[in-house]
Amino acid sequence: MKTYLDCIPCFMEQALRASRISLDYDAEIKHVLDKVGELIKDIPMDSPPPEIAMQVYSLIYEKTGDRDPYSQQKQDHMEKALKLYPHMEEVLEESNDRILSAIKLAIAGNVIDLGVNKTFNIEEDILQSLHEDLTINDYPQFQKQVANSDSILYLGDNTGEAVFDKLLIEQFDIPVTFVVREEPILNDITKKEARQIGINEVAEIVSSGTTAPGNVLSTCTPEFLETLNKADMIISKGQGNYESLSNFDGPIYFLLKAKCPVIAQDIGIPEGGSVLMKGA
Amino acid sequence: MKTYLDCIPCFMEQALRASRISLDYDAEIKHVLDKVGELIKDIPMDSPPPEIAMQVYSLIYEKTGDRDPYSQQKQDHMEKALKLYPHMEEVLEESNDRILSAIKLAIAGNVIDLGVNKTFNIEEDILQSLHEDLTINDYPQFQKQVANSDSILYLGDNTGEAVFDKLLIEQFDIPVTFVVREEPILNDITKKEARQIGINEVAEIVSSGTTAPGNVLSTCTPEFLETLNKADMIISKGQGNYESLSNFDGPIYFLLKAKCPVIAQDIGIPEGGSVLMKGA
Repeated sequence: MKTYLDCIPCFMEQALRASRISLDYDAEIKHVLDKVGELIKDIPMDSPPPEIAMQVYSLIYEKTGDRDPYSQQKQDHMEKALKLYPHMEEVLEESNDRILSAIKLAIAGNVIDLGVNKTFNIEEDILQSLHEDLTINDYPQFQKQVANSDSILYLGDNTGEAVFDKLLIEQFDIPVTFVVREEPILNDITKKEARQIGINEVAEIVSSGTTAPGNVLSTCTPEFLETLNKADMIISKGQGNYESLSNFDGPIYFLLKAKCPVIAQDIGIPEGGSVLMKGA
Repeated sequence: MKTYLDCIPCFMEQALRASRISLDYDAEIKHVLDKVGELIKDIPMDSPPPEIAMQVYSLIYEKTGDRDPYSQQKQDHMEKALKLYPHMEEVLEESNDRILSAIKLAIAGNVIDLGVNKTFNIEEDILQSLHEDLTINDYPQFQKQVANSDSILYLGDNTGEAVFDKLLIEQFDIPVTFVVREEPILNDITKKEARQIGINEVAEIVSSGTTAPGNVLSTCTPEFLETLNKADMIISKGQGNYESLSNFDGPIYFLLKAKCPVIAQDIGIPEGGSVLMKGA
């Protein structure tokens, strides 16, 4: 997905929000916004938004010296999500179609995204999303793809929601590789948090090499690109990965909740819609 | 009121919205955003936001060549408001306190503000606001001030709401001077629209000389500053005038609906609150 004009005020808004976590003085925060302002003229609008966001957050981290400002919040979200885990397992026990239900839970878990939502109540949002129909539902194709695959490459997104990704991964009877970001960026998952959640018990964990909040191909390692291109089946979780890979030519399935109006428009659904969508 | 950090993403958002009215191509709009981005580092944060907004809109007008992009929308709002006029007069007929009711209507009319609200339904908003209590209500002081004044200086704001200002002005039995912007800026009222509404039938119309979306003192003519400083009583309408004059030392009363979260916070009320407030 390209960067839309509407993304520009949003970058500025995100820069303000992120700077406020690590900086105490308005003058320091203003300085970050000055730098982001100067960056705007150099934005390649054909690039996916996470590529620009990477530059914006890099400016912030440079200024603040805090490479992981969302560290505490990631821990909080993880703990909250882990508390819900037993209840989610119960839900799956009662389900007629465990994989479809786990998909819905994994999408519902995608509400945990600091890049877009300022505040949220995980429990409420998860429970609300559970009984809603998917706005785009390519589950039949998804099922066939699983049946014809020897393994799945699962692209993780935010830290908290990865707890629900683990639950979905457990439903597959073929090996899964779980992909994380190389360095902390926003509240996205890295190896450290993936291990804390115990994803290593259900999947192999690899880094894509990116420090963007989405697997923008130009920022990934050659090793990861090879893995991606050879994959039998790819599950791409969340908005950042959709923005980065919406034009990727391969057996990719996007699982996300369209919290951002621009992404919703790009997909062609109303804002807030939940999607299990086969890629182009 | 000073410019808050939160105003910066909002300037960018406003620049995008305003550019889209006059420009057809994304690349042209992007160029405006580039310029606004470069402007950020030069923003004097101690200045009121309308002073910065004036620079932002000046950039847009320079790029588009369209000095009055909101011309059509101003006409639409005016017509809608004028259609409601007979009904508003009926409401006042039935009122126990015509001035207080007219104040509430004038504040309700302040929902007509393109700078903040993207879309709105005038009728709905006016009717909803009519029966709500004011969040800050300095009406007793206001009444005394009117009783002790020989004239009122009324600072107009947006074009559509000026129809309701006219209704309030008609309730006073002392002369009123109605102040407009010198040039079109956003959807603010100038002499042209004030005459279309017929405000010249109930008040003398003068320009403050400003081209900012608020009577920022440093942008006003010496003649207006003299008028302002000598005024028996000043009624300041809308957010832009509050932002410009919140620290003005004089017999000033602010009438506004706090649609912007930053202004609401500056006043110390919840967002959406309606205010009849004596100045400092």
